[in-house]
Amino acid sequence: MSAHANESLDQLCVNSIRFLSIDAVQQANSGHPGAPMGAAPMAYALWDRLLKHNPADPSWPDRDRFVLSAGHASMLLYSLLHLTGYALSIDDLREFRQWESKTPGHPEHGLTPGVETTTGPLGQGFAHGVGMAVAERLLAQRYNRPGHEVVNHYVYGVVSDGDLMEGVAAEAASLAGTLGLGKLIYLYDDNGISIEGDTDIAFTEDVGARFRAYGWHVAGPLDGMDVSAVEAALREAQAERDRPSLIVARTTIGYGSPNKANTGGVHGEPLGADEVALTRKALGWPYEPFIAPQEVYDHTLLALERGAEAQADWERRMADYRAAYPVEAAQLEADLAGELPDGWADGLDGLFGPDEKPMATRDAGNRAMNAIAERVRALTGGSADLAPSTKTLLREPQAQDARAPSRNMHFGVREHAMGAIAGGMALHGGIIPYTATFLIFSDYMRPPMRLAALMGLRVVYVFTHDSIGLGEDGPTHQAVEQLIGLRSVPNLNVIRPADATETAMAWRAAVERTDGPTALVLTRQATPTLDRSVYPPAEGVLRGAYTLWEASASPEVIIIGTGSETQVALDAARMLAERGVAARAVSMPCWELFDAQPQEYRDAALPPDVTARVSVEAGRTLGWERYVGAGGAAIGVDRYGASAPYKRIFEEYGLTAERVAQAALDALQAAR
Amino acid sequence: MSAHANESLDQLCVNSIRFLSIDAVQQANSGHPGAPMGAAPMAYALWDRLLKHNPADPSWPDRDRFVLSAGHASMLLYSLLHLTGYALSIDDLREFRQWESKTPGHPEHGLTPGVETTTGPLGQGFAHGVGMAVAERLLAQRYNRPGHEVVNHYVYGVVSDGDLMEGVAAEAASLAGTLGLGKLIYLYDDNGISIEGDTDIAFTEDVGARFRAYGWHVAGPLDGMDVSAVEAALREAQAERDRPSLIVARTTIGYGSPNKANTGGVHGEPLGADEVALTRKALGWPYEPFIAPQEVYDHTLLALERGAEAQADWERRMADYRAAYPVEAAQLEADLAGELPDGWADGLDGLFGPDEKPMATRDAGNRAMNAIAERVRALTGGSADLAPSTKTLLREPQAQDARAPSRNMHFGVREHAMGAIAGGMALHGGIIPYTATFLIFSDYMRPPMRLAALMGLRVVYVFTHDSIGLGEDGPTHQAVEQLIGLRSVPNLNVIRPADATETAMAWRAAVERTDGPTALVLTRQATPTLDRSVYPPAEGVLRGAYTLWEASASPEVIIIGTGSETQVALDAARMLAERGVAARAVSMPCWELFDAQPQEYRDAALPPDVTARVSVEAGRTLGWERYVGAGGAAIGVDRYGASAPYKRIFEEYGLTAERVAQAALDALQAAR
Repeated sequence: MSAHANESLDQLCVNSIRFLSIDAVQQANSGHPGAPMGAAPMAYALWDRLLKHNPADPSWPDRDRFVLSAGHASMLLYSLLHLTGYALSIDDLREFRQWESKTPGHPEHGLTPGVETTTGPLGQGFAHGVGMAVAERLLAQRYNRPGHEVVNHYVYGVVSDGDLMEGVAAEAASLAGTLGLGKLIYLYDDNGISIEGDTDIAFTEDVGARFRAYGWHVAGPLDGMDVSAVEAALREAQAERDRPSLIVARTTIGYGSPNKANTGGVHGEPLGADEVALTRKALGWPYEPFIAPQEVYDHTLLALERGAEAQADWERRMADYRAAYPVEAAQLEADLAGELPDGWADGLDGLFGPDEKPMATRDAGNRAMNAIAERVRALTGGSADLAPSTKTLLREPQAQDARAPSRNMHFGVREHAMGAIAGGMALHGGIIPYTATFLIFSDYMRPPMRLAALMGLRVVYVFTHDSIGLGEDGPTHQAVEQLIGLRSVPNLNVIRPADATETAMAWRAAVERTDGPTALVLTRQATPTLDRSVYPPAEGVLRGAYTLWEASASPEVIIIGTGSETQVALDAARMLAERGVAARAVSMPCWELFDAQPQEYRDAALPPDVTARVSVEAGRTLGWERYVGAGGAAIGVDRYGASAPYKRIFEEYGLTAERVAQAALDALQAAR
Repeated sequence: MSAHANESLDQLCVNSIRFLSIDAVQQANSGHPGAPMGAAPMAYALWDRLLKHNPADPSWPDRDRFVLSAGHASMLLYSLLHLTGYALSIDDLREFRQWESKTPGHPEHGLTPGVETTTGPLGQGFAHGVGMAVAERLLAQRYNRPGHEVVNHYVYGVVSDGDLMEGVAAEAASLAGTLGLGKLIYLYDDNGISIEGDTDIAFTEDVGARFRAYGWHVAGPLDGMDVSAVEAALREAQAERDRPSLIVARTTIGYGSPNKANTGGVHGEPLGADEVALTRKALGWPYEPFIAPQEVYDHTLLALERGAEAQADWERRMADYRAAYPVEAAQLEADLAGELPDGWADGLDGLFGPDEKPMATRDAGNRAMNAIAERVRALTGGSADLAPSTKTLLREPQAQDARAPSRNMHFGVREHAMGAIAGGMALHGGIIPYTATFLIFSDYMRPPMRLAALMGLRVVYVFTHDSIGLGEDGPTHQAVEQLIGLRSVPNLNVIRPADATETAMAWRAAVERTDGPTALVLTRQATPTLDRSVYPPAEGVLRGAYTLWEASASPEVIIIGTGSETQVALDAARMLAERGVAARAVSMPCWELFDAQPQEYRDAALPPDVTARVSVEAGRTLGWERYVGAGGAAIGVDRYGASAPYKRIFEEYGLTAERVAQAALDALQAAR
């Protein structure tokens, strides 16, 4: 085939992507045609010339990762997946944005084969890709051996103006530069148009210069509609060892549409039947909707052959590696499968003895996570520049060089990117990531936590300094509404353990969970360690709530506590017992786990006929009605905190056993 | 006085700031001494040589604003406020971080005179300062006249490594560059140390180059401990007309402490008595704790004289302006006082007639905000690149140049900075800012919304596309937990109006409110417009909830709806009435306003003896127990959304009148 023929074949392929996208958006009468039309050439250059993947096995561990950070361009990705042989039929494309289709409005990981991460909220994909590249490097450093590069792939992405305006992308880009992630390569679809119009109205910075300042290799600006130019820039980027790459590729949004190209209007609305027809004419496209010429398929489906070969080659190399390094190979394979080693939680047994002194649950958390990390090599993470406070360092050699192998990561003061990078690490596989910061700063990282919950990723978020109990730092640092805020996220488990023993169980639950993330909410201040030879076992944590103590098997009142206030609940229950009231103290570290128990268990913990109930928790009372009922009372913090030594604040805010006991007596009286 | 004497006086002043800070942290046994010790010279250079302020009148409108973005260095600010004559005594400094003191752990606006904004959560102050500079320019463009520069001041700040790592600062910096905010001048306390140690572990970017890429003037790196060098850089920055300035000032954290300077340890912990003594020795400081030499006060208190003169001069100029431009002067003064003009809400009367067609509340919001904006000149804002979707453009000439005067701002895809910039505009005064994006992206801007609520700022957050009702964009864009998430923020009012008429009232409530922010939660999809000649007046919104319709004055069941589901509630109530059940439909657009009503009103809307209640809202049911009680049912969305046409999703998710009616019947049966 001549060069010219190749060129025209490329053009046919590119236009196939464009028209599949146009037609699907038009059929759905909803969606974003502009970006696929402009970015089709660069995406094609990547997928046709460089991307290492096997459409027949989207879970092959050593595939390159492709992240469409500009998730609204979903049809670009669906078109590529379809054309290259993933299990995504033309009928699936016809069902774009319809109920239960495999082609939702924005790409959803887990729903559509080949979709590496759920994107749409801008900036998140950018940072998720950074996390994937972090995971690749960690695993390569951990498992590769001389002559055995069994972990060795790139992470590519297409990012938009909108992605690059988002702070989360800025944070992730800065960290990627520091980490020197040479295998991270992003194509920047620089089309100069956003929804409100020309990007000049809000985005005039020199993006290339900014990324150079972060330590990135920057190519371009180049003609993003020129497949060869993009391919050349990609190959140059591949050669970078220690710098992530940004390829600034100028494109025309809505390319081909005579009246709508290069306008904000083509961003998020169908072209309309007339304009679709005009675009067909302008680009010389004679095919019916959803039809791509056979020669296109003949070419694009070669991805299946290339993919099968590449994977077979890797499998041979894995076999060699397995022969030479059987222990490492077994570990790598277990890590990639997300399997925990036998006895992985054994280190937690008896970690806290009966004579344990009071300690902050953040300190207990440190011991628990290290006990797990000794056996669970995949556990890797760090904090947003608060490790000495969150106590989340693993007992491992500390690397002074940000690029040296270490299980202790330093995210910098970048909570938002930390959350997304952890998600990307989990998406990659082979790593069980954890993050850490103060509970108040969970507000900075809600978008990636939501995506992790939506995708069902195993990520552990450690949040310490969990309430007014942090004391002097004051209201800007004291979580009030954050607990209920986290509990409101579907599929995020939120565990606020009462003491050291419950903290160990909370860590166990978080690491054990494979279908979603867990937030561990820990104190700065010391709480008494419950003597489990006296109290029921801390395994109760795994059921969300359990009776900790009661004066009688037939309680009249129930006091429910979480975290550091469990002790307040316990004191109040004892106080009531001394006054002859049959009180029960329930520890309730996790609403989500409790709600998932059989009715029988829930009724045993909170007998329906005992309506005199009081909850105590140093956070908003909102939502506690669910457990204390109409006859109960919720004691909490429904205003902002204050700067003072914490014991004083607890007193002033009325989070005391006396007040809780009185509320219980009032509830009891009302119930009688 | 010789130059040498001046120098040593400067040094005395600088050391006074250092030791007041050291002593207060030591006394509190809690706090951050390192940053004040390193940044004292630069802050002193600014406050002594350039800052235009009047310590006797911290509310003088044309003062320069000073933002300590690194809020953990609060003692730096408190020391300066004390020394320059603000109403902050040495006893106040002794009470650092104690209950109800004027010197909390982090600076709190409204609590301490001279504190321009509440800081602590990193990055926020940076972006708030950008908002103040935006407000200054808007007011200058709006009110200054040739020869009458009555609005003319700078915004200064001290920002830290941590601030500059945060994405919100990156977003704000990029926008500040685009806007060309020449009067914004930040000192970057570049000390190379963060809590986890050397910033090299996580922050190796070239900050100066990054800011140049944003279009900033960047000075330095210079010796931040050299008062004259900092002063010179500040004067150079003042001369910039069209570029914000970043002065990179190298400092030594914990300067003067022989054993702790330049370590992470001095960041967030008291020096300890021994090290305090050693530091006194090292810096040759013979004074007792909390004592500064009289010659320091003699010098620093000159700020009072300078301030009185500066303010008197401005008042003379205002008098001239008032004489020449009486209308403008009166408007400016009213705007600065936060006063609304007489009849400001008149445009809302009859805005939506009885024959109004169904419309999305986002569209109704556009009409309502424009009706207000015609009379309320201070209303100014924009969206995070979604104005065509949020429908939040004011009917004003659109500026094509980002630096031209316009009430329609373009924040770019920067929700987080948008929130903080709006807060800064409100803090500045003279502006009633509004922001707009989809409800799902409220997750990106929680930190500044929290600060606005904590500070009690009048900001209006418009959130459209408020549920699964947005349809095809799918779960990444469909709010589920965001409503309860916003409701959980203390002092944030959240209003989700049912229709166009309620939307007008919601806007009225938001603009009328002076003690805190309001979130307006609006639909993408059309909802029927209630004919207010048939239904009770929409003023009910102002009380949070009201009876919309009932079959009988003695209802047996109550159906509560919000937003677009109010129609579902209404349909269900009618359906029940047809079956002979006395049903009441309650519209409940705002929990916070309802909870603030007298018990009598609340009991009239939701009679305690009617326990058969059902709520319907397209969001998490969490928290609805408060209103439906133990005998009721909450119908909502407790899982993630889906991509499909919205009517289909509503059906599949069971948000239908039939299901609500059935739930009401079930509740009624259980109650009987």
